[in-house]
Amino acid sequence: MPELRRDPVVGYWTIISTERSRRPVEFSAADIKEERPCPFCEGKEDETGGEVTAIREPGTLPNSPGWLVRAILSKLPILSLDQGSNRTGRGIYDLMEGVGTHELIIESPKHKHDLDELGVSEIEKVIQVYTHRLNALEKDPRFKYALLFKNHGLISGSASDVIRHTRSQLIATPITPKRVKEELQAAQSYFERRERCVFCDVLRREREEGSRIVAENDAFLAFCPFASRSPFEVWILPKKHCADFGKLAPEYFPAFAFVLKECLLRIKTLLNDPPFNFIFHTAPFRHKKKAVYWKTIEEDYHWYLQISPRLTHDAGFEWGTGIHINPTPPEDAAHLLKETEIPKESF
Amino acid sequence: MPELRRDPVVGYWTIISTERSRRPVEFSAADIKEERPCPFCEGKEDETGGEVTAIREPGTLPNSPGWLVRAILSKLPILSLDQGSNRTGRGIYDLMEGVGTHELIIESPKHKHDLDELGVSEIEKVIQVYTHRLNALEKDPRFKYALLFKNHGLISGSASDVIRHTRSQLIATPITPKRVKEELQAAQSYFERRERCVFCDVLRREREEGSRIVAENDAFLAFCPFASRSPFEVWILPKKHCADFGKLAPEYFPAFAFVLKECLLRIKTLLNDPPFNFIFHTAPFRHKKKAVYWKTIEEDYHWYLQISPRLTHDAGFEWGTGIHINPTPPEDAAHLLKETEIPKESF
Repeated sequence: MPELRRDPVVGYWTIISTERSRRPVEFSAADIKEERPCPFCEGKEDETGGEVTAIREPGTLPNSPGWLVRAILSKLPILSLDQGSNRTGRGIYDLMEGVGTHELIIESPKHKHDLDELGVSEIEKVIQVYTHRLNALEKDPRFKYALLFKNHGLISGSASDVIRHTRSQLIATPITPKRVKEELQAAQSYFERRERCVFCDVLRREREEGSRIVAENDAFLAFCPFASRSPFEVWILPKKHCADFGKLAPEYFPAFAFVLKECLLRIKTLLNDPPFNFIFHTAPFRHKKKAVYWKTIEEDYHWYLQISPRLTHDAGFEWGTGIHINPTPPEDAAHLLKETEIPKESF
Repeated sequence: MPELRRDPVVGYWTIISTERSRRPVEFSAADIKEERPCPFCEGKEDETGGEVTAIREPGTLPNSPGWLVRAILSKLPILSLDQGSNRTGRGIYDLMEGVGTHELIIESPKHKHDLDELGVSEIEKVIQVYTHRLNALEKDPRFKYALLFKNHGLISGSASDVIRHTRSQLIATPITPKRVKEELQAAQSYFERRERCVFCDVLRREREEGSRIVAENDAFLAFCPFASRSPFEVWILPKKHCADFGKLAPEYFPAFAFVLKECLLRIKTLLNDPPFNFIFHTAPFRHKKKAVYWKTIEEDYHWYLQISPRLTHDAGFEWGTGIHINPTPPEDAAHLLKETEIPKESF
């Protein structure tokens, strides 16, 4: 049963995930994994966890073929729905049952490797499922936050990692993670001082300077952030202020799908399909009882997508200080990404 | 010239390290590095950066043979002494020149791979150089902090990484890193509430419970922390309260050398020489002008060494939430480490 444990000093939480427990000898073997037939393709629905939602052809049934985008439960959940959310103390230590949910969003019924291989209208449907699931999880009072993210070409602990079928993950947590709180509080304090959203200010500044812009359309700006922690890091921000990605209006889906595909293609082409991850930064769930605490969040927070190619390796200095070393100035990264020729027929 | 850039939202700093600048094609090649003759062995002193200090046989000269432990300047410094520490603003962004220093501490004149291969009395000399350099850097008013750490078997950006000659790194920074401040502030707030050091409380609790202890002697306790972020993580804490590793009295060097060697040997034997890093958590430099701000630090902070085998791979979830997933409960890890048979003749 997963257990959340809280560090008594700084207060970070760790998930002790006994579902994924490994003996010492298993760690060294973890990198060598066998390729096995893909369980995420259409027709293999009985090999995956249960279907949570799907965009389907009319008349087709859950857990059967006929879907276009499909959200399922992970078979190796990091946090599980079968748990309570009791908090207990053990001397000076705090712990909590690992209630949560862990879903996979399968982005294509065909064995496509990457999101950028899909057409813009297919990516719109993926965005529809992303926002739909975020909004559904928000209704569950056990959850405080959900992280929507993608690991591409990254090893992250489960045997299904080697299967290249485009998908993202959605994990709902019983706590608002420290890193998320930190960003919210920082945005709040900026707003208190200036009565402006810090992200709106960043958008304005990036458009004025121009040197870090990678792509742009009417509704979105994609740029390499000023203090990029990894080389070729790209943020995509909606130009219109909005705190929740889940609340993105469907009229913006085409523009977001387009800019997302364009950024992923530019990264893939320039950097030869590097490992990367993307993370949606979005407001935490606001259940009614929390309404006072979060009263300003609509004004002071602003959702964005962070895409980070994983080209460098963190080690002691980064872990010890939290300061990252980036060998590529974001101005150079943006210039190279923008100048990269991407095939027009992809769109 | 390295440049420190501050994120306008959360306020983390990034080092844009143009000394290590890489073009896109170079990233994929970064993992394949050629083995070259070791420049860190005795007799190759002219191939390394200049000597900062050394424990030497009487009558031998700096940058020549005859040393036992040797601190040198890195040839690829992350932060450099040639810089100023001017801070400037560019619109809403802050930046700072990358003043600092980056030293390597070569732990043996012989081509030993790992610190645990040295005898206890040799490790005592290494500790002597560690503390000596920390104390020397503290006197420089340009620096606020220095991180002492070791990357073992970890890729971290420079061509000399593939050379296996036991050494640690010491990097002095012109700022107190956010992650360090966070730990200091948390310890301070615990102390304010209870008038006790949180680390002393942790020590007491670990000795009462016993189930996470890996090694112990009169002066030090080594244990797997309750909320271990990585499997088989070990902390070594001095039993006597002390905020600064640099102030460790020489009478404790033998006990610290012994417990350090024992922990490294247990990790290496049980986990088949895994990549790991260790990080000294120690109080930041307190120059006289800062005396008021840090007035309680002697009482509320407590230095320790964190040893983290790198057996799992962080990905989107860890980056997005700051919550780590650890598949091995620390009680199991401690039990396995403690039961591991290590050769007695090593000591």
